[in-house]
Amino acid sequence: MKAILTEGQTDTRFAAVRRRFEQYLNDENYSGQLAVWWRGRPVVDIAGGPELTRESVTGVFSVSKGVAALVIATLIDDGRLELDAAVTRYWPEFSAAGKSGITVRQLLSHQAGLPGIEGDVELDLFLKSETGAAALAQQTPLWVPGQAFGYHALTIGILMEELVRRITDTTLQDIYELEIRAPRDADFYLGLPEKSDNRYVPIGEAKLTTAQLLEASTEPPADGISALAFRDFGSGSEKTPEARGANNVRMRRAGASAVGGVGSARGLARLFSDALPGSSKPIARPETFAHMSQLHSWGRDRVLHVQNAFGIIFMLPHPRMPFAGYRAFGHDGAGGALAFADPETEMSFGYIPAPMQYPGGADYRSIELARLARDCAMGKS
Amino acid sequence: MKAILTEGQTDTRFAAVRRRFEQYLNDENYSGQLAVWWRGRPVVDIAGGPELTRESVTGVFSVSKGVAALVIATLIDDGRLELDAAVTRYWPEFSAAGKSGITVRQLLSHQAGLPGIEGDVELDLFLKSETGAAALAQQTPLWVPGQAFGYHALTIGILMEELVRRITDTTLQDIYELEIRAPRDADFYLGLPEKSDNRYVPIGEAKLTTAQLLEASTEPPADGISALAFRDFGSGSEKTPEARGANNVRMRRAGASAVGGVGSARGLARLFSDALPGSSKPIARPETFAHMSQLHSWGRDRVLHVQNAFGIIFMLPHPRMPFAGYRAFGHDGAGGALAFADPETEMSFGYIPAPMQYPGGADYRSIELARLARDCAMGKS
Amino acid sequence: MKAILTEGQTDTRFAAVRRRFEQYLNDENYSGQLAVWWRGRPVVDIAGGPELTRESVTGVFSVSKGVAALVIATLIDDGRLELDAAVTRYWPEFSAAGKSGITVRQLLSHQAGLPGIEGDVELDLFLKSETGAAALAQQTPLWVPGQAFGYHALTIGILMEELVRRITDTTLQDIYELEIRAPRDADFYLGLPEKSDNRYVPIGEAKLTTAQLLEASTEPPADGISALAFRDFGSGSEKTPEARGANNVRMRRAGASAVGGVGSARGLARLFSDALPGSSKPIARPETFAHMSQLHSWGRDRVLHVQNAFGIIFMLPHPRMPFAGYRAFGHDGAGGALAFADPETEMSFGYIPAPMQYPGGADYRSIELARLARDCAMGKS
Repeated sequence: MKAILTEGQTDTRFAAVRRRFEQYLNDENYSGQLAVWWRGRPVVDIAGGPELTRESVTGVFSVSKGVAALVIATLIDDGRLELDAAVTRYWPEFSAAGKSGITVRQLLSHQAGLPGIEGDVELDLFLKSETGAAALAQQTPLWVPGQAFGYHALTIGILMEELVRRITDTTLQDIYELEIRAPRDADFYLGLPEKSDNRYVPIGEAKLTTAQLLEASTEPPADGISALAFRDFGSGSEKTPEARGANNVRMRRAGASAVGGVGSARGLARLFSDALPGSSKPIARPETFAHMSQLHSWGRDRVLHVQNAFGIIFMLPHPRMPFAGYRAFGHDGAGGALAFADPETEMSFGYIPAPMQYPGGADYRSIELARLARDCAMGKS
Repeated sequence: MKAILTEGQTDTRFAAVRRRFEQYLNDENYSGQLAVWWRGRPVVDIAGGPELTRESVTGVFSVSKGVAALVIATLIDDGRLELDAAVTRYWPEFSAAGKSGITVRQLLSHQAGLPGIEGDVELDLFLKSETGAAALAQQTPLWVPGQAFGYHALTIGILMEELVRRITDTTLQDIYELEIRAPRDADFYLGLPEKSDNRYVPIGEAKLTTAQLLEASTEPPADGISALAFRDFGSGSEKTPEARGANNVRMRRAGASAVGGVGSARGLARLFSDALPGSSKPIARPETFAHMSQLHSWGRDRVLHVQNAFGIIFMLPHPRMPFAGYRAFGHDGAGGALAFADPETEMSFGYIPAPMQYPGGADYRSIELARLARDCAMGKS
Repeated sequence: MKAILTEGQTDTRFAAVRRRFEQYLNDENYSGQLAVWWRGRPVVDIAGGPELTRESVTGVFSVSKGVAALVIATLIDDGRLELDAAVTRYWPEFSAAGKSGITVRQLLSHQAGLPGIEGDVELDLFLKSETGAAALAQQTPLWVPGQAFGYHALTIGILMEELVRRITDTTLQDIYELEIRAPRDADFYLGLPEKSDNRYVPIGEAKLTTAQLLEASTEPPADGISALAFRDFGSGSEKTPEARGANNVRMRRAGASAVGGVGSARGLARLFSDALPGSSKPIARPETFAHMSQLHSWGRDRVLHVQNAFGIIFMLPHPRMPFAGYRAFGHDGAGGALAFADPETEMSFGYIPAPMQYPGGADYRSIELARLARDCAMGKS
C-alpha cells in the first residue's frame, strides 16, 4: 500500500470524511479535491493524488450549470425574472414555431423541448451564445412543453445566457464575476482568466476498469433525441482530447454556462455556502433558493432515459443520485464532480476528481463523501 | 398438519374463497378476518387463527384513509366540497409559501408536495390535527404541485381533517360516526370507544421468514423525502411496539384518518357495500364514487419510489396491487389489510391479517383472496 | 439452405437493406414485403417468402392508425380541426360525464381516458363507428384527462372517425379514398374493394418458437384497464382466426381506422412519401406534420404498462421501438408491420411480414430494416 498524501485542513468533527477520501486516494487512477463548509466556515479543504493539489483548477462540465444558476437566483430574487412569465416577455423572438406559451419555469426546468440545436453545430453557437439562442428561437419543440422533460445538456446554458442578456443588457458571465465571484474571491470561474492558466489541470480521459466500462456502456437506446442533445460540435480538430470541454482554451475563456466552468472544490463549497440560509453574505434570499429547489421535473428523462429530478436549473437529490436530503440543491458533472448546498444540515459541498471517473457523472465517491459529510454535520459519524 | 378452525358463514357460491383462506391459516404466523358483501348482502364473514375471531377489532393503518374518504365523498356529493376549487376557498391560511393555486383535487390525490411535516414532529400534530394543519399551511411544497405526486402517508389525514373542519365546523371523525358508522352499526371506528377496548387485538410485529425479510428490506433509496414522510413522531416511549399505530391508546381514541382506524373485516365490507351503485342506503351517489375513483395520480410515486395509482384519496388497482378491475376503489394498509368496493362485480371486500404480514402493505394474500372473490361473484370459480 | 427468391427492384445504394431482408427470408415461418421511398422516388420495392408477392395485400392492424392520421393531418392543415379546441366544439354530445374540458389534442394523443367501451361490445360499434362514438360520448374517463395516457387500441379509431364525420359530413374513409389514396393510386385501403379480394392474403397466426412464446407471454399484469381496452367484440363466431382483423370481410370492407386497413408495403411507403417536406404532392404542409410529430404522450402507458411515445395519433420512435430518429412519425401494428416518414433522412418506409411475427408488434426485423435503410439514405452503409 502506497503512502497517502493529503494536503489541507479538516475539522475533527469531519475526520471520517477525510479518512474515506484517503481510502479513495489509494486508487492509482484517482486524484481529488474536497471541500465542505458548515455553519459559515470551512471544515474540510483537502486534496490529494498525483494530479491535483489544493491550488489546482480544472473543468467540471455540468457543475457549471449549478454555478450559473446562482446568477439566475439573483434575478429571481430581485424580481427581474418571473418564473411564471412567458419567455417571450423577455425574449420576443422566442415565440416562433408555436413557443409563445412556454414559461420561464418550463424553460429552466428542462421542459421546453429544445435539448439540441438542429443543423450544423459549431462551437460558436455555445461560446457566442446569442447565435445559439437565435437558432433555438426558431426551433419547434421536440415535445409539447410541459408534457415531458429531458436534460438540455448543452442548450440550457444558451437559454440561461440569453435570458440574462435580454434582462440585464450584460452577460451571465459578467454578472457572475462582478456580483458573485469577485466579492467572495471564490476560486471558481465562468471564464478562467489567462493569468490562472498555469493552475489549470487538463481534464483527463476516464481510465475505466473492464467492469466500469461495461457499466458505462449501458447507453440509452438511440432514438435520436439523445444523439441530438449530445452531438459533437465544431470541426474535427476540436474533437480531440485537448479540445474536450474546458481543455479547449476558447471554451475555458468563454466559461459557457452549460459546461465551461473551471475552478476548485474549495471555490465551489465557498459559493454554495452563500446559498444557505445562515449566510452573512447571501447570494439570494433563502425563500428564493427554497423555491428554485422545489421539484419541477421528475420521472423519466426524455433525453437521458433515466429517472431524473430538477428544480429551476438545479439538480435535486433522487434515488439515482442521493447526494443529500430533500432540501438540497446543486449539480453534478460528467467525470464525477459535484457541488451543492444543503439547508437541512447547514452545509455546502464541493468535490472534483481527476481524471474523469465516470463519463456520465454520478461518481459513487461523490455520493459517499457527501453522505459522510452530512452525517458528520449531524453528529452521527 | 394442524386442524383449521374457521368460524363464520360463507355462501356456497364463494366456497373457493373460504378454501383459500383456510390454506393460509395453516401458516402458524397467521390469523385473519375476511368479509365479502355481494349484491347487497354478506356472502363471506369468517375468521381464524390464534389471534383473531370474528368479534376482534384491530388497527389497519392506511385502510383508515379509505374509510375517511367515505366522509369526503359525502361532502363532494352534496356540493360542499368542490374538487376544482382552490384549497384556500375553504382554508385561507393555506395560501402561505406559494400555495394559493393548489386545488382540492391536487391536495386529495397526493400532488400537493406536503408529504411530511418539517421540524419537530409530535404525535399531537396528528391527533389534534388542527395543529398539524397549521404547520402544513406554512410549508413550501417539496415539488411544484401537479408536476409530481407522492404518498402523503401521514399528512393526508391531517389535510382531509382540516378541510372537513373548515367546511362543516365539526370533525371528520364525528361526521363518520354520526352519519356513516352508527346508522349502519358498522364495526369499524375512527376513534374506538373505551367500551370496545376489550375486543382490541394489538397489532403484532411482522414475523418474517428470511426470504420475506430480504424482500421487505429492498427499501427505496433514501433521498430524504421518503424519510421526511415516514419519520417517527413523539418521544421515545411512543416508539415501542406498544405504541405502534392504534396500539397507542391515544391514537386509538382519536382515530386519526391516516392510520388510526380500528375495526373488523366485517365492518369494512359493510361500509364499502354502501359505496356500490346498488346500495339501498348509499353513502354518496354512484357518480360521486365514479368520479373519485378516476385515476388522478399515476406513475412513479415521489415518496415511495414505486409505481402507484390514486384517485381522490382512494387507492386504485394497478399492476403492483391488482386487487380488482378498473372501476374498483379502496385502500390497503401497512401489515396487509385491504378494503374496497368494486362496482363491476357488485362486491365489497374487507380483509385483516394478524400479526402484520408485510410491513409495507401489498400482502399477496389480500390480492389472491380479492381475485378469488371477484371470480366467484362472476361465476368463474 | 433453401433458395431465396426476392422479387422487385432495389437501388444499389440500398443493397444492404435487400441483403438483410433476404437473410430473414431464410426463416421458414416468414414472408415479407418491403418498400422504401427516398427523395421522391422508390428505392426499394421487394417481396419474398411463400405467402407474399409484391402484388399481395394483407391486414396490418394498427398501422391503419398511421394512415388514418394522414386524413387528420389534412383537417389540421386547412384549419378545420384545431388541436387546442375542446372536443365539444365539433361534437357537443361528448360533454357528458365531465368531459367538456377535454381538448382535441388530448383526445388524439391517447390522453382522454376512454381506452375501451363499457358494456356489451359488438363489432358494429367499430364498423359503424357512429354507434361506438355515441357510447363513448356517454362514458366517464378512466383517468383525469391529461394526467395519464394509455393506448386507445380500438377506440382511437372511433374517436377519429367521429371527429371527421362531425366536421366534414362525410367519413374518414371516403376522404381517404378520394383525396389521398386515389390521386396517388396508392396500394393501401381503408375499405378494400371487393374486386381486390383476390389479392388478399389472410393474416396468419404467429408461429412462435418457445423462446418467442415465453417473451410474448410476459403480459402486463391485469388491472382491468388493459382487459377493457383489448377485449374481444362480437359473437363467438367472429373470434375465430378467419374473423381476425381484416380477415373478417365486414372489417375489410369497412376499413376501420384503428385496425381495418389493408394494403401492401409499397402502398404504405408511397403514402408516407407525401408526408415528407420534399414532396411534390404533399398531403399536408411540413409544419403540420412537424407539429403532429411532437411528443405529446411519453412515459408509462396506462393501458399497455410499457414506456410509449405518441404525437397526434402517430407513434414516435422511442427506446422500445427505435425505428428512426427524432423527427420521424408513423405507426406499427400487431404482427410486425410498420410504416413511417422520416424528414431527417428524406425517406418513407413500409414493411409487412406474414404470418404475424410478434403478436404485440415491435418486430425486431422492422426496426433493423428501418435502421439499415436510414443508414443507406445517409450513405453510411
